[in-house]
Amino acid sequence: MKFLYTGIRVKNVEQSVEFYTKTMGMQEVSRGQMEAGGIYVHLKSPDSDQDLELNYYPPGTQYYEEYVKGSELDHLAFWSDNVPEDYEHALAGGATSAIAPWSENGYTLAFIRDPSGVWIELMGKTR
Amino acid sequence: MKFLYTGIRVKNVEQSVEFYTKTMGMQEVSRGQMEAGGIYVHLKSPDSDQDLELNYYPPGTQYYEEYVKGSELDHLAFWSDNVPEDYEHALAGGATSAIAPWSENGYTLAFIRDPSGVWIELMGKTR
Repeated sequence: MKFLYTGIRVKNVEQSVEFYTKTMGMQEVSRGQMEAGGIYVHLKSPDSDQDLELNYYPPGTQYYEEYVKGSELDHLAFWSDNVPEDYEHALAGGATSAIAPWSENGYTLAFIRDPSGVWIELMGKTR
Repeated sequence: MKFLYTGIRVKNVEQSVEFYTKTMGMQEVSRGQMEAGGIYVHLKSPDSDQDLELNYYPPGTQYYEEYVKGSELDHLAFWSDNVPEDYEHALAGGATSAIAPWSENGYTLAFIRDPSGVWIELMGKTR
């Protein structure tokens, strides 16, 4: 067996695609319809092999549930060449702040929440 | 920015490391201690660049919370050369069944839950 990708559940597929492409710099690779009802979209960053799948289940379909915050997904991590700048860019693009940028051990870190509430870590070398 | 890895939160770090290495075939790449308290472990499959981070926050540390099932993490996807066999292997290794194997469009699919409850998709060509 080998790990292929991570699938996150989103509240609004077009809003999330727009956020991950326009704001987070990813590219849409493919999308399709699930047999059980729903839409999936695969995204990649230009310089990374990591594959992120967005899953959306419309109300009334088999896997629909009310969207609730849970523990399983701790965060998605993104490398940034300028964390304070990308943090502000993400907030302007529809993210909300979870933890404002701080530095430790030569790295600058910050956490934002995507439009569905998923925590995203921004990490880079302190400039 | 580029997507680096997915971090999931686990209930018991050694139990999860054992599950993802012995049962799911991944290898431990690195591990460390967080400044805020907690342990992280990075895992990869031998034939994949996807990076999975396990995060564990002990009770009393800054980011500890009671572990609750949520919506954000839909699933982690693993490719399998023999889904029915790997499904049974996973159940024997500490996973629980979410959806038993079925076939559609030439592929066999199944869903299991890891020891923390994270959904894992097994997918492969129907044999």
